[in-house]
Amino acid sequence: MQLEKYTIDQHNEGLSASHKRKLSALTSDIANAEAILERLVAFQVAIPSWALGTGGTRFARFAGGGEPRSLEEKIEDIALLHKLNRSSGAISLHIPWDIPKNGAAIKVLAAQHGIRFDAMNSNTFQDQPGQPLSYKFGSMQHVDKAVRRQAVEHNIEVIEHGMALGSESLTVWLSDGSCFPGQLNFRKAFENTLESLQEVYSALPDAWKMFVEYKAFEPNFYSTTVGDWGQSLLYATKLGPKAYTLVDLGHHLPNANIEQIVALLLMEGKLGGFHFNDSKYGDDDLTVGSIKPYQLFLIFNELVEGMDARGMNHTTDLGWMIDASHNVKDPLEDLLQSVEAIMITYAQALLVDRAALQAAQQNNDVVRAQEALQNAFRTDVRPLVAEARLRAGGALDPLQIFRKENVREHLVKQRGLKTIATGL
Amino acid sequence: MQLEKYTIDQHNEGLSASHKRKLSALTSDIANAEAILERLVAFQVAIPSWALGTGGTRFARFAGGGEPRSLEEKIEDIALLHKLNRSSGAISLHIPWDIPKNGAAIKVLAAQHGIRFDAMNSNTFQDQPGQPLSYKFGSMQHVDKAVRRQAVEHNIEVIEHGMALGSESLTVWLSDGSCFPGQLNFRKAFENTLESLQEVYSALPDAWKMFVEYKAFEPNFYSTTVGDWGQSLLYATKLGPKAYTLVDLGHHLPNANIEQIVALLLMEGKLGGFHFNDSKYGDDDLTVGSIKPYQLFLIFNELVEGMDARGMNHTTDLGWMIDASHNVKDPLEDLLQSVEAIMITYAQALLVDRAALQAAQQNNDVVRAQEALQNAFRTDVRPLVAEARLRAGGALDPLQIFRKENVREHLVKQRGLKTIATGL
Amino acid sequence: MQLEKYTIDQHNEGLSASHKRKLSALTSDIANAEAILERLVAFQVAIPSWALGTGGTRFARFAGGGEPRSLEEKIEDIALLHKLNRSSGAISLHIPWDIPKNGAAIKVLAAQHGIRFDAMNSNTFQDQPGQPLSYKFGSMQHVDKAVRRQAVEHNIEVIEHGMALGSESLTVWLSDGSCFPGQLNFRKAFENTLESLQEVYSALPDAWKMFVEYKAFEPNFYSTTVGDWGQSLLYATKLGPKAYTLVDLGHHLPNANIEQIVALLLMEGKLGGFHFNDSKYGDDDLTVGSIKPYQLFLIFNELVEGMDARGMNHTTDLGWMIDASHNVKDPLEDLLQSVEAIMITYAQALLVDRAALQAAQQNNDVVRAQEALQNAFRTDVRPLVAEARLRAGGALDPLQIFRKENVREHLVKQRGLKTIATGL
Amino acid sequence: MQLEKYTIDQHNEGLSASHKRKLSALTSDIANAEAILERLVAFQVAIPSWALGTGGTRFARFAGGGEPRSLEEKIEDIALLHKLNRSSGAISLHIPWDIPKNGAAIKVLAAQHGIRFDAMNSNTFQDQPGQPLSYKFGSMQHVDKAVRRQAVEHNIEVIEHGMALGSESLTVWLSDGSCFPGQLNFRKAFENTLESLQEVYSALPDAWKMFVEYKAFEPNFYSTTVGDWGQSLLYATKLGPKAYTLVDLGHHLPNANIEQIVALLLMEGKLGGFHFNDSKYGDDDLTVGSIKPYQLFLIFNELVEGMDARGMNHTTDLGWMIDASHNVKDPLEDLLQSVEAIMITYAQALLVDRAALQAAQQNNDVVRAQEALQNAFRTDVRPLVAEARLRAGGALDPLQIFRKENVREHLVKQRGLKTIATGL
Repeated sequence: MQLEKYTIDQHNEGLSASHKRKLSALTSDIANAEAILERLVAFQVAIPSWALGTGGTRFARFAGGGEPRSLEEKIEDIALLHKLNRSSGAISLHIPWDIPKNGAAIKVLAAQHGIRFDAMNSNTFQDQPGQPLSYKFGSMQHVDKAVRRQAVEHNIEVIEHGMALGSESLTVWLSDGSCFPGQLNFRKAFENTLESLQEVYSALPDAWKMFVEYKAFEPNFYSTTVGDWGQSLLYATKLGPKAYTLVDLGHHLPNANIEQIVALLLMEGKLGGFHFNDSKYGDDDLTVGSIKPYQLFLIFNELVEGMDARGMNHTTDLGWMIDASHNVKDPLEDLLQSVEAIMITYAQALLVDRAALQAAQQNNDVVRAQEALQNAFRTDVRPLVAEARLRAGGALDPLQIFRKENVREHLVKQRGLKTIATGL
Repeated sequence: MQLEKYTIDQHNEGLSASHKRKLSALTSDIANAEAILERLVAFQVAIPSWALGTGGTRFARFAGGGEPRSLEEKIEDIALLHKLNRSSGAISLHIPWDIPKNGAAIKVLAAQHGIRFDAMNSNTFQDQPGQPLSYKFGSMQHVDKAVRRQAVEHNIEVIEHGMALGSESLTVWLSDGSCFPGQLNFRKAFENTLESLQEVYSALPDAWKMFVEYKAFEPNFYSTTVGDWGQSLLYATKLGPKAYTLVDLGHHLPNANIEQIVALLLMEGKLGGFHFNDSKYGDDDLTVGSIKPYQLFLIFNELVEGMDARGMNHTTDLGWMIDASHNVKDPLEDLLQSVEAIMITYAQALLVDRAALQAAQQNNDVVRAQEALQNAFRTDVRPLVAEARLRAGGALDPLQIFRKENVREHLVKQRGLKTIATGL
Repeated sequence: MQLEKYTIDQHNEGLSASHKRKLSALTSDIANAEAILERLVAFQVAIPSWALGTGGTRFARFAGGGEPRSLEEKIEDIALLHKLNRSSGAISLHIPWDIPKNGAAIKVLAAQHGIRFDAMNSNTFQDQPGQPLSYKFGSMQHVDKAVRRQAVEHNIEVIEHGMALGSESLTVWLSDGSCFPGQLNFRKAFENTLESLQEVYSALPDAWKMFVEYKAFEPNFYSTTVGDWGQSLLYATKLGPKAYTLVDLGHHLPNANIEQIVALLLMEGKLGGFHFNDSKYGDDDLTVGSIKPYQLFLIFNELVEGMDARGMNHTTDLGWMIDASHNVKDPLEDLLQSVEAIMITYAQALLVDRAALQAAQQNNDVVRAQEALQNAFRTDVRPLVAEARLRAGGALDPLQIFRKENVREHLVKQRGLKTIATGL
Repeated sequence: MQLEKYTIDQHNEGLSASHKRKLSALTSDIANAEAILERLVAFQVAIPSWALGTGGTRFARFAGGGEPRSLEEKIEDIALLHKLNRSSGAISLHIPWDIPKNGAAIKVLAAQHGIRFDAMNSNTFQDQPGQPLSYKFGSMQHVDKAVRRQAVEHNIEVIEHGMALGSESLTVWLSDGSCFPGQLNFRKAFENTLESLQEVYSALPDAWKMFVEYKAFEPNFYSTTVGDWGQSLLYATKLGPKAYTLVDLGHHLPNANIEQIVALLLMEGKLGGFHFNDSKYGDDDLTVGSIKPYQLFLIFNELVEGMDARGMNHTTDLGWMIDASHNVKDPLEDLLQSVEAIMITYAQALLVDRAALQAAQQNNDVVRAQEALQNAFRTDVRPLVAEARLRAGGALDPLQIFRKENVREHLVKQRGLKTIATGL
């Protein structure tokens, strides 16, 4: 399914007058509109390869149709998103679900669509057919050195796949942990995991980063061996300068102050990247911004402040990825909504009057501090985000065009109704 | 401290051009702007008398200055708020903190400022000097009938005070519960509480409503005898048609879906009123909309939908109250922020395209349903809220004028630096 | 796999001296030991048919071996448990996973092992092959009457299967709900669900009970249409006297006081039954008593007190079932541990000095009330539970004999290593 | 109020026969009973000076009678506890609530009762009369260096008081944080706090330890500047080898796995001490073991395992303190219950068959691992704990003797009914 440029142009033309009017009403009040637009144009969010198919729960999975049947079709899907929003120019692959048969060809295909390869993801939370040893009782934490070795070697293979594709980072999410008190010796599980991570770390190319992801619970329901940011930071610090913490928004205990965690990790120079999604109860993997958009804004507020304080490049110095599961929505529509929510929130964070905020903080003027944040959050920045898309060659209203052009219907016709994307 | 009309007029004039521009840019996209404005003008939120002073925690209280020293000064403070935002035209009194020495005079004073008396609040969670029996182990739940009787009689007195002032509802919040397993027989505590509430109910004038407030925890840390909406509804149903459930946003377990509770209580015809505030961990009593503004929007969305489905009057058929504690902000500024957040959110809920939402729901089009809600929430409705204030005779930017006129400094000069408002 | 009686006898003989010594040391301090023993012998917990195989999460499933391949083998497995502990004399079937090909023969088979058929479970949370309409967007709540009708008819079929087997109750667990704000109209979802339940209710035989199970979240991650005990009670009350609430320990928000809920449902005459398991984060479905044994004790304390207050029969007036998922343990060993935990806890609850507890409550003597509960909980009642098993013909140490006799190895040999039990 | 030795002897004699019978029945099954008894005799838990009076909440405080009116009377109260249970031989003072007028005399008084001075507690969460600068917006985090300086100097004074009394550690609990998004710059708040702590650290005598306590929330309701173990560890690591993390059981987010945190802090050599209490919702400060006794056991299990792995002395290498608030119980009775719960749980942890547990872990035998823990937890070790008390010269049943001797009545007579202990 290819969307032609003139289709997008036509769509944009139809919305042009209304867009211009709204944009002008908005920018007349914003001093740094151009600077914000530049940043928005540059900002790219990686799409995880597993998010292109319908997700499921332990109870059921209700498949949609037209899901990608191969890595090539996954790239095709992301190309479509990127054509529409110009902010999805990266893919995050999962091994073994996405082992490229021909790495060079895949790299060319992606490059043709302006898509680069973001962090590679390894998988030691499932047993693959023919795998000699089982991860039932963990992988890098395992009491059996042979299992740990298998997990390490898998990660090294993932790095090699990534090198062939031009990726420069590895995300290690371990489901390792325990379901019952007594099952693990926590200390030994930590030490085994550290030893395993060190072996992977030593195989990491110079330019690469390793992201150590943490998660409070699920699929283990008593303990997780990389369970919170404190543990992840401990591993990353012991591993060395190429190791960083990765924050997934859904991987926290109830009521956690994620924005503070983000600020402190940035302070320590140890924030590596982000998995965006939203949630109400646990790792619900819902559309970004669909449940707690203000929390997302507060996180972006810390990101912008913290990256600027360290002179970091907003676009390239952190890994920006979505990690969601689409159980009741069309996966591509869901991703359009997620990227839109990220761009809106990033724009709002860029809009914060930093001088006013700092002055309020310096004076303990809590009322003014809140006003500084809420002024930005309450501003309707959608015209700015749309303008950034327009300037980058995308569509003013990606979702509208997706629907009007019957994209999913075309995909179903092309790929069939009962295809199932690899992944969960 | 009196704010003169010309001060407000001058302020409005200064902001007029900018306001008109923003309003016109906004309303050009809104079909029902006038209808929304009418509703906004009519909407009034009651200010609780205890929220006019600085709050505290069990650890400390850091008093501000210029706090009201009497019921008269509390009414004066609310009059000031109401003059600024024209949406604070009601007060919710707490007995015994606010026993009027001269009810008739107080009623006249309030009426002069356009303030009516909303729900009366009783207090059986503290022992008052000279009180014969202690509430240490509960009030209406107490194993000793004499304590229960004392609590009932106190509530009847509160009703009588309210009748003198023109109030028409009684909010019963009980801190009754237990701190340790075994302390209470849950069933007997429920039965005692029901019996006590029935005695109060039978003293309720015909036109009155009784609001049964629930709370998950604090100040009892094991169980609360009116602990959740299910228990409150059980009491209200057994009591009769004048008894309703009151929802305080901070009185839930982590992750509770409050908007669903609101929808179901409306369905049952048993939602009586609201205590607005915000929170991250427990009954934190923070400024409305300062932590989870989207949750507040989802609640208002249910309120509007549910009230319209039952043909209810938005302004008068439910009790709208703030219940907050101002530990680090000027109480009056905090209340201005809270009322503003309520008005903004109400306006956004009125803006929801109901037909589009219903169509999406009918088609299980989850993407469109989310768009319908987020379109409204992402709209910057502040010009509409300001316009409603302007039409009602208030200030375009209440907080700005409060600061510019040095209201707090005047109050400190007038009342002193070390006054302490009655209350917690 | 059959365990011969002499194997158990031999095992018991070996442990006899030690058991007698411990039992006598214990009972010398207990006034009502014989009465407790009688109750323990009578108490039976139903095993759910789906708990005989290895469970899984949305991420992975690590199968064990020797899982039952048919309903007959499931009954065989439960017969084995029951032979060992004499407290597992019931099975709770799930349709369509356990549709009996020959109901009469299955009934005879179960009866031979002393096993009766407890509550039947319907399934409208998954789509079955060939099913005309999908439950992707709910079943009994569905906007499409035809889907609701399909769900109702399925439940009626389940009742019919149950009648053939001698069951007398139906558990309705609905995963109905929504993943995103706006997806559902809460009120209409409730009304549709109520209408559907009423249609099932009207098909219920006179002697039957309907259990309306509630759950806070999962697999829907924004709202659940039977989400808490308040909602379940609302449905059950509207349905009529044969409808009851079913409590699953893992279906609550964090920090919920489940024992209070149990007490109030008993008070209302609306507690129907229990799903035992344990959890730390959500519906983790862990072994009973493995995480919060004291909470389990407090629940049993309310059950005993509340049932006695209403003159209920402990064994037959409530439905006692396990609902767990065995991801890292042998399912049969896990069930032995779960039943043991239930029996221990029930014994402790029976041991509570009710007169002392009531006197403490009557005097607000919180210290003594706590002592009354903890005295029972801290008592090592395992000899009592073992004696009850012995008297009923079971094994003193079921787990030991299970291991010593290599039961699982026999089952693997007989059924194979890669069998997969029907279910999740 | 003095309890004479013969009163205790008489009491013990009366219970002696029954005690001996139970002890002998118990120890006949325990290989290492004598070793456990030795450890129990040695184990001492410090009583915080503020826990000797009735606590309260932000809503109310219902005072008891006979509360200590001076530091001398506080020591007297602890002496009484210690005489009864021989495990309360330490006091943890709070400055400024307990500034000794004559340090040397106080030291002698305490020594006469066998009581030593455990960690000193500073207070920068309240403003004291006459204090030049306010802690309303924090102390060590404060944007104003002068406020930070005041907080540092206060802590240095606390160290000096402690030196005079023979204490060797300082607990720094900061309530610093924020109530609203935007109020703080998280990074600067961390840096300010670190700088302040470093200044205190540099005033720390060589033999001293500094405990950095963390807390998730309350009294600040948006962020806490030492908010979790990860942050505390970061401070402690940056401060140096004399700085440690202090764990208070009630200071975590819902569902946190505290035992894992404890194990990892021990692994890092950075666990300093403990504040024991129990809770269901937040920092509820309930009696130890009254809500989640199994969690307490799992924590002690990690403590014993981890201290042994590092060759640490159980009694002296960690700071063991109670931190509770007694709202509905007699404070002294509550403390007796708390210490009893600690001793019981410590005994159970010592009882765990470590070899069996390790073997189970090594074989991923989750069932056996659970059995190893539950065997210990289900054992009724109360006779062991009583025997340890007896050997140390205490009472077999402290609570019974406390009641029988009418201790509280004597204290009320002596000190009055309306005394209020200094503290919260």
